[in-house]
Order: sequence, then structure tokens, then C-alpha cells
Amino acid sequence: MAAPRKIRLGVSMIGMGYHLAGWRHPDASAGGNMELQHAVRVTQTAERGLLDMAFLADGVGIRFNDVPAGALSHTSKNVQFEPLTLLSALAMVTSHVGLAATASTTYNEPYHIARKFASLDHISGGRAAWNVVTSATDMEAQNFGLVGAPPKTGRYDRAAEFVEVVKGLWESWEDDAFIRDKASGLNYDPAKVHVLNHEGAHFRVKGPLNVARTPQGRPIIIQAGASDQGRELAAATADVIYAASQTIEDARAYYDDVKGRMARYGREPEHLKIMPGIMAVPGRTRQEAQDRYEVLQELVQPVAGLGALANYLGDLSAYDLDGPVPEPDPADRRDHSRGTIFLEMARRGNLTIRQLYLSIAGGNGHRMVVGTPADIADAMEEWFHGGGADGFNLLPTWLPGGLEEVVEMVIPELQRRGLYRTAYEGRTLRENLGLAWPEHPAAAARRAALAQQLGSAAQ
Amino acid sequence: MAAPRKIRLGVSMIGMGYHLAGWRHPDASAGGNMELQHAVRVTQTAERGLLDMAFLADGVGIRFNDVPAGALSHTSKNVQFEPLTLLSALAMVTSHVGLAATASTTYNEPYHIARKFASLDHISGGRAAWNVVTSATDMEAQNFGLVGAPPKTGRYDRAAEFVEVVKGLWESWEDDAFIRDKASGLNYDPAKVHVLNHEGAHFRVKGPLNVARTPQGRPIIIQAGASDQGRELAAATADVIYAASQTIEDARAYYDDVKGRMARYGREPEHLKIMPGIMAVPGRTRQEAQDRYEVLQELVQPVAGLGALANYLGDLSAYDLDGPVPEPDPADRRDHSRGTIFLEMARRGNLTIRQLYLSIAGGNGHRMVVGTPADIADAMEEWFHGGGADGFNLLPTWLPGGLEEVVEMVIPELQRRGLYRTAYEGRTLRENLGLAWPEHPAAAARRAALAQQLGSAAQ
Repeated sequence: MAAPRKIRLGVSMIGMGYHLAGWRHPDASAGGNMELQHAVRVTQTAERGLLDMAFLADGVGIRFNDVPAGALSHTSKNVQFEPLTLLSALAMVTSHVGLAATASTTYNEPYHIARKFASLDHISGGRAAWNVVTSATDMEAQNFGLVGAPPKTGRYDRAAEFVEVVKGLWESWEDDAFIRDKASGLNYDPAKVHVLNHEGAHFRVKGPLNVARTPQGRPIIIQAGASDQGRELAAATADVIYAASQTIEDARAYYDDVKGRMARYGREPEHLKIMPGIMAVPGRTRQEAQDRYEVLQELVQPVAGLGALANYLGDLSAYDLDGPVPEPDPADRRDHSRGTIFLEMARRGNLTIRQLYLSIAGGNGHRMVVGTPADIADAMEEWFHGGGADGFNLLPTWLPGGLEEVVEMVIPELQRRGLYRTAYEGRTLRENLGLAWPEHPAAAARRAALAQQLGSAAQ
Repeated sequence: MAAPRKIRLGVSMIGMGYHLAGWRHPDASAGGNMELQHAVRVTQTAERGLLDMAFLADGVGIRFNDVPAGALSHTSKNVQFEPLTLLSALAMVTSHVGLAATASTTYNEPYHIARKFASLDHISGGRAAWNVVTSATDMEAQNFGLVGAPPKTGRYDRAAEFVEVVKGLWESWEDDAFIRDKASGLNYDPAKVHVLNHEGAHFRVKGPLNVARTPQGRPIIIQAGASDQGRELAAATADVIYAASQTIEDARAYYDDVKGRMARYGREPEHLKIMPGIMAVPGRTRQEAQDRYEVLQELVQPVAGLGALANYLGDLSAYDLDGPVPEPDPADRRDHSRGTIFLEMARRGNLTIRQLYLSIAGGNGHRMVVGTPADIADAMEEWFHGGGADGFNLLPTWLPGGLEEVVEMVIPELQRRGLYRTAYEGRTLRENLGLAWPEHPAAAARRAALAQQLGSAAQ
């Protein structure tokens, strides 16, 4: 009998937490987004909670417009560690938690990305994960010679080929290619190195990669997979999806859609773990939880709240904060998928501008649960057993406290219900996620040929 | 009175050591080039020896041609950690030694490089150094969409602008830009963030960088500075040069030339530390040292030796190993500066092909000293006091042993002579190298304006 399916958990550990005012929390270290010890404490908390992975979002530039003027200087969304350097450091002070970093396919080269994640996988003993994104903001484009971000279709075409090249480079060396026989002087078996020779629309990459095959075979691949193109790419290549759904109906529809697309790539549904974001704020009582949430909500200043909206809906500072949310100017070039979610929230709840920015200040459009540990476990269980999720990506309001509260209060409740591990099952992230070992294609082909040969011999 | 000038030491800690047969040393871990604990031990040994820095050479691809066939599989120059991920990990198990990584300007973007080294500088508490190189091999070019490396002049033009952009990005935030005042909600002072808006021949980069100014003000910049263009770039922008000279005459000429170029950039000679490479093999007696060296020399196979030559002089496998070194085919497109050094060595010593590859198998054209600790200290002192060097970049024959021998035998001898530190002077690499703090230009301008104002007021 197969072991009962368990909830997978990741945590977004970027900067000061997910809440717009997280850095202003009375117990926060206001400069934590550039303090190594802050990141160490957060990651070690994630490991104490037996989380599958700690995840660093990233942008290649500041991605928060200073609109209205002064918005940016009233948030902490300005500076941070570069994810791959930080995760390599964090690998040295943890032993089991997975280490996931965002890296953009829009302004990078596949050879660099393949190397860096392979290197992190070796350094961490098999705990690396790559969150594949495209870069949508003009602010990032302007750091790479462009005026604005390339169109979405082009970005996704490039991303799909980018992932293909990286995966190919990760197969440059078979697992047992290195003989390192001091006596004969033979360092590797030339038959077990594979030159990629990729030639595509966006990339020509010869290879081989100058890093050995990694402890996980290859690092874990994460995607967001929101748009139709994104879902298709995720169905084809992702191990994990960080999804964003507000209701179980949305979550289930998304889950069914993406898992349904996998068959055409010869993949089983369980080869992909769908983990929607969730902002969970626990308290011993519902009132305590609500009070914890309100501490932060009260710290959201209008200039910062309007700033958070401006990135998706344009500058609304000329409108009455306590009036309705206007239709955004379609000429305003923004990240439309998130903007659409925000507008739907406003329409559904009949929200004013102030109510809208307050309702996104925490989860930024992700699901939010404020309540007792049982409430939060119920909310997770509903989606987990209801066909909406394989696990969740925790979005702590602030760090490290918001995560510590979940680890200390919610994890034990999930464990009591048999929904969550009580010890790490394996050594690598792949093992802990319950994902299959990716046999090297050349080794698989040799094994198949040998089996056929033995079959023929037996006849 | 100024403290007496001390010898600076770095160590090249790439892979299995500098000697072609280092991985075959009886005491070596043959797979050390992909073992984290190997790198940890080497870096901790460097710190035990109070070295200024541990240095990782790098290429964006394998840079050793498989010529003649089988050459590559008979060396360990195939796989390695990616330097920035590895150094970030090593920062966590060391506290004072500088951490230097090569990163190419040919196939990178300045924004990425500025971020990663700034992040490493924060993680390490001010110990990051960037070795600026251009990528000369066709093997690397083919991993980035090209058939062959771009011409040298174009590479250097790009490199010069690349360094300028990176330095500019490192000045995005003044040291005291971040106020992080929870009460007022003001995270930073908008007057202390500086948008670069660089527009040049190769790059358009807006900025600001999304990393705060670093503990060293900016990471240390290292260059090789061999060619005329390279020397000029180093005179303008480098903090350290890893030079390659065989004789004190060459070293002195190089030293005088580069330091002489600095005035036109408003820099003092002591703002740049010139550290030629040196392969030092110590023994309690000269015989013991020679025996240590011979252990490795005897492990150099002809296929590997010819391979090492082929990268610079073309395939010589059709010639008599014990005959003279032929003139290379000028149509053979190679790294000519190193090839020229090798040919000069052959002509000067009237070497056969076998003798030439044996003589470069260790130091790859760098200076080599095999002898007692006093011999090695003499050799260093001669160049240090003779106007040829501010210090040296150690090239251990194999790792960790080749470095451990230097740390245990040569360092105490240098200390006895008062030529070397007995404790780290500072916390950052910049402090230990004795280099001045780079005041932020905007802060300097404000200080100057204030001084003028005070001066006017006093009149």
C-alpha cells in the first residue's frame, strides 16, 4: 500500500515578508532584507518546520514603481540579496530544506543558469530548485538595454527553449562518467560525456556543461504557469507550480486543467506538485489571529498602498481613497494577470480603493486565512483533499515571526491530522517531494538495449 | 611612521591544483574538483595561513581542447563548481580570508555581475573580489551562440565599459541611504539613491542596483593586465593585478610600466597591488622539495602534456616528443600571449617538446621555485624588495597538500623576516590589502561643498 499523500509546504522567504508593512512590525529587524543572520534564521525555521523548501522570489531590478511619488521609499521592496549567492550560503547552515531561487529566462543565458543551479545542487547535497520566470516589468528591461519588456509571447517562446537547453546541459555527463583512475590517468569515460549541440530559434549552445550531473539528477523546476502558454510550459516541464487561486473552485479548475495537459507530454499527474500561495495568520483564538493581522494592516500607509496598486492598475492617487476603484486605463502597460485578479476582488467585494489596497497588502492577491491552527489546517485540508492543491507555498506576513507562528502552531495541527510529515523522508528535495529520479537518457537507452538483447538471447 | 610594507598573498584554489597531474597525486582526493569539503579545507587552510584571498579561476565552458584525442579525459580540467555559488558557501566557514572569483565580461550583463558580487560582499562581511576577464576561447563562445571568440580589441572595449557600468551600479545607494524608520514608515532617503542612466557603445543600463552599498564600499577588482589594452584598463580600474612574469627583469619592467600608467587616472601607485603568480614547492631540504616536485612530474602522461601545449601551440603529436618545438602555424587561432611565453621558454632553454610540456605542467608558464622555505622566501623577497611585486598569487601544485606545505613551511619563514602579517589587520579584504575606503562620490561632493561653505563663512 502506498504511503498516504502528504501536504507539501514551501515558504516565500524574500526580504521582510509578504505584507507591505512587514518591515514595520514592532518585532521585525527593519533592515533584515540585507542581513545574513535574518535569512539564516528564516531558513532554519523552515527546516525546523520540516518544510519542503524555502523560496526566494527575484527580479533583475527594483520592480516597484515610485508611483505615486514617495511610494517606493515607504516600502522595503528596494534591496535584497541575489538569490543564488544567498542560497549557497544558506546551504551551509541547513541540511534538509530545499533551496529554491527565481531566475529569469528573459535576460539570462542558459549556460550560466544551468551552471549556477547545478553548482547549488552539488553544494547543498541535492536541494536546489529553479523557479523559471520571464521578466515582465519595464524597470527590469531598462537594466538590460531595452526600453520596455519584450512581448509576452516572445518571452514565453524564449523561456520554453531556455528550459530545454538548461535541461539538456544538465545531461552533459552521465552519473558515472567520472572514473578518476589515478593509476591509468583516465579521469572520465569519453563515452559518457554528451555534447548538446543545441541550435534553436533563440539559442545556439554547444556544451558540454562544466559541472558534473547533480545529486538530484537535475535540480527541481518550479513555474508559476498562470497564462495559457505558462500552463502548457508547466505541464511539459515543471516539477512544482506555485499557483495563485482565491477560491477552491478556481483552484480545482486550475489543478484539473494543468494536470490534464500533462498526458500529451507522457507525464503522470503526480509528477507535478501544485502548490498555491497562502497567507496564513494563526492565533490561539480567532481574535488573537485577527489582532495579529490588524497590527500590520494598521501600518499600511496610503502612499505605500497606492504604490502597491499602481504597479498593476496605474496611479489612482487622484481618486477618492474611499470611493470605488476606477477602470484602469488600458493604455497603461502593466502586468495584466495580477491586475485582473485585483479588479475582480474589487468588483466581487464592492471595495473602495483603500479597502482594495488593504486587502492586497498582505497576500498580494493570494489566498489569505486568518484564524486558529484548526481553521488554517481546515482551509489547507479542504483544498488538498478537494482536488485543488498538492501543497501550499506559505507567504508569511513578516519574517521571521510570521513563519515561526505557522511552524509552531499550524504544523503540529497538520501532523496530528496525519497530513504532514514528522521527519524528512529523504536527503534531497526530490526525495522529499516524492518525485521520481530522472534517469540519464543515455543510461536509460543502454539499459533498454541490454534488456532487449537479454530478451532476444532468452528466445 | 608608516607600518613596514608586507607581502600580500593570494592562492589559486581552482579544482585539484595547478599541476596538470595534481589530481593523480597519491594523497589527493581524485574527485576533489566537485567535492565541497575539498574546497572548504583549501579555503580554511588559506585562512590559517593568513592569506589575503583565495581565488577561483573560471571559464564559461571547458577550456581544454581534446587535442590530441584523449587529452581532455586524461586531465581533471573538465568540471568544477561555479565560482560565485561556491564562494558564497565558503564565506560561511571562514571569517577573514578574501574570496575572489573570475567572471567574464564577454558573455555576461553588468547588472547581473554587479548584483552577484555585491551580494557576496554582504554575505561575506566585506571579502568579495571580482577578477575581470574577457573570454578568449572558441569553446566558450560556442556556448553563447557564437562560432568563435570575438576579436580581442572588441572584447577589451566591452570589458572597459562593463567595469564602468558595474562600478556605477555599486554606487546606486549611499552608505547611509537606508533609514528604516518604522515610526514614520520611511525606508530610505530618496536623495541618497542614484539612478545610473548609463548609455554607452555596448550597454544601456538604467539602475539603480537592487543591492545596498557593500561593506567594502565596493568589491575589490582584480585584473590580469597582460596586453597593452589590458595594462591600461588595469591602471585605470584595478585594485589588484594577477601578473605572470618569469624573471625579475620582466617583473620589474611590467611593474614600472603599469604603475607608471596610473597617474593619468589620478591614482597613486600603492592603490594597486601587483601580485605575480608563483608555484612554490617547499621541502625541508632542496632534495625533499625536488622529490615532491618529481612525484607530480612523473605522473604527466604524454597525451595530457601534448594537450596542455595544444591549447596554445596547436597539435604537436605528429612531431618527435624528444625533438625541437616547431614554429606554430600562425593560422592556428590560439591564445597568443601564453603561446608566446611558452615558445620563448622553449627557445631560451633549447627544450624538446617533452621538456617544454614538463616545464609548463606545473606553473603553466608562471614562475616556479622548488626549494627550502628560505629559498622560497628569498625568491619572494627579491621581487618584493626589487620592485617587481607587492605580493604573490600562489599556484599550488595540488590541493590541499601543495598549499598546506606552503602555509606550514614558508609562511613562518616570511613572518620571521618581518615580511608577512602575524594576524589579519582588518575585517574586510580591502582593509587587509591596505587599500583606501572608496568614499561614495555623492557623499564626497556633499562633504566638499560643506567644507567650502564653512571656508566662506570663516572669511
